[in-house]
Amino acid sequence: MELWFTEKHADNVRFSIRIKKQLHSEKSEFQQIDVFDTYEFGKILTIDGIVMITEKDEFVYHEMIVHVPMASNPNIKDVLVIGGGDGGTVRELTRYSNIQRIDMVEIDQVVVELSKAYFQQTSCKLDDKRVTLFYEDGIEFMKDKKDVYDLIIIDSTDPIGPGEGLFTEEFYKNCYFALKKNGIMVNQNESPYYDKEKREFIRANKKIRKIFPVARVYQLHIPTYPSGHWLFGFNSKGIDPVNNDNVDGWVKNNLETQYYNTEIHRGSFMLPNFVKSMISQ
Amino acid sequence: MELWFTEKHADNVRFSIRIKKQLHSEKSEFQQIDVFDTYEFGKILTIDGIVMITEKDEFVYHEMIVHVPMASNPNIKDVLVIGGGDGGTVRELTRYSNIQRIDMVEIDQVVVELSKAYFQQTSCKLDDKRVTLFYEDGIEFMKDKKDVYDLIIIDSTDPIGPGEGLFTEEFYKNCYFALKKNGIMVNQNESPYYDKEKREFIRANKKIRKIFPVARVYQLHIPTYPSGHWLFGFNSKGIDPVNNDNVDGWVKNNLETQYYNTEIHRGSFMLPNFVKSMISQ
Repeated sequence: MELWFTEKHADNVRFSIRIKKQLHSEKSEFQQIDVFDTYEFGKILTIDGIVMITEKDEFVYHEMIVHVPMASNPNIKDVLVIGGGDGGTVRELTRYSNIQRIDMVEIDQVVVELSKAYFQQTSCKLDDKRVTLFYEDGIEFMKDKKDVYDLIIIDSTDPIGPGEGLFTEEFYKNCYFALKKNGIMVNQNESPYYDKEKREFIRANKKIRKIFPVARVYQLHIPTYPSGHWLFGFNSKGIDPVNNDNVDGWVKNNLETQYYNTEIHRGSFMLPNFVKSMISQ
Repeated sequence: MELWFTEKHADNVRFSIRIKKQLHSEKSEFQQIDVFDTYEFGKILTIDGIVMITEKDEFVYHEMIVHVPMASNPNIKDVLVIGGGDGGTVRELTRYSNIQRIDMVEIDQVVVELSKAYFQQTSCKLDDKRVTLFYEDGIEFMKDKKDVYDLIIIDSTDPIGPGEGLFTEEFYKNCYFALKKNGIMVNQNESPYYDKEKREFIRANKKIRKIFPVARVYQLHIPTYPSGHWLFGFNSKGIDPVNNDNVDGWVKNNLETQYYNTEIHRGSFMLPNFVKSMISQ
């Protein structure tokens, strides 16, 4: 027997992964969550039929969403993660001794529980003593926060279902106010290639540029996401990620990484023309 | 009715494209060639069941295989293209008035004929008066060439079937000898992600590094190739593509491009650690 998981990367494009075994299937209060063991990618977590993480390439996503801001400001102490229930973002954050507090707001406790049960690789640091888990709606959580965090990471699903409110102007504004004066907000920013993600990238980027004086976009290769060409936003009250003398000093942290280094830190902000043209729309 | 073309990106990974219509199917002396009209990617050309070009994203491949070397040496006059039967590489080359001669060696005349019939977008400059087409085996063609070209572009298929000999040490050596003293060789260098392409990338890179004093690797996003994370080799007798004062002067050519610019020229050589570790093996 052959068992295949198929995700529609676009209406007329399909990406299929051969499954060894379905390990778990559960409809939480918020979404459909599945865990599979696969031949090529190790274990994978899907939400509403969309791949969230695979053991094979989650390192790309989590290293790039964490080390780019951390290298841009070595004095980050207070961090907020919105979403990120698999724990991979927290895992990378806990590698920094200068971080004193990591608040993580995940709306769906079931994602965290399943990650703890099946994805030790990403969830292994969720019990670090600096981490506080809030099982709340990130949108509500942000409404009354002023001047609290040095870094906010929006590690969200696509802007469909519970992730939708994390792509609104009001939410980005609340993030801005929740940041201290050197604050940085990094956001999962979709992809420039297929229409659906492209539209969401352009929309989110437009909203953010109205609010943050520094609003830049960087790219990375995530083979299991639609098109493999993925984007994150780097937004701040002043810190620039490229013209930044701190970046080279990152090596003093002595962190072993599989994707991130200080060269690709800068290289990832150098974008193809077709992506640049979407930003200036 | 739904008609789907499926390519195995790996043994247990499939990429499927919905087809409007099969436009052509032909077994040439060398390979199986098919042309499809698709919903997402426009027309696509496949060889032995593998996507070679799509109208939607061929610009990434062709701009990056041509403009990176052309910006690195603005005095390039004599160019050789090995493979590249779709014509996209030649199209980009003909945009430079300083190029005086473009020899193109394509083993399979049928690929060129079908490209002329179905892919005006890529084949439109194959009749430029500077272009000479040789329907020959590239391996044989290279055996007696000494000190002739400023730039050789190996625009090959994968190292299976007729493309295999284009990945041998002997062939790379013949390219070295065919180059003038400022010569550059750029090669299609597979991908670092799935085992099959990764193995071929490492192998080819090892061979080339024995021969060329400058042997560097750059990356690009091609969503319709396996993993979307693709690599080209930049190899030369001395010219470096990054520490190179000529690169910024490329803008004087006034060429409109969709992917290439002088920033991503440099950024594409900044590689993730897992790719760097394959190069130093």
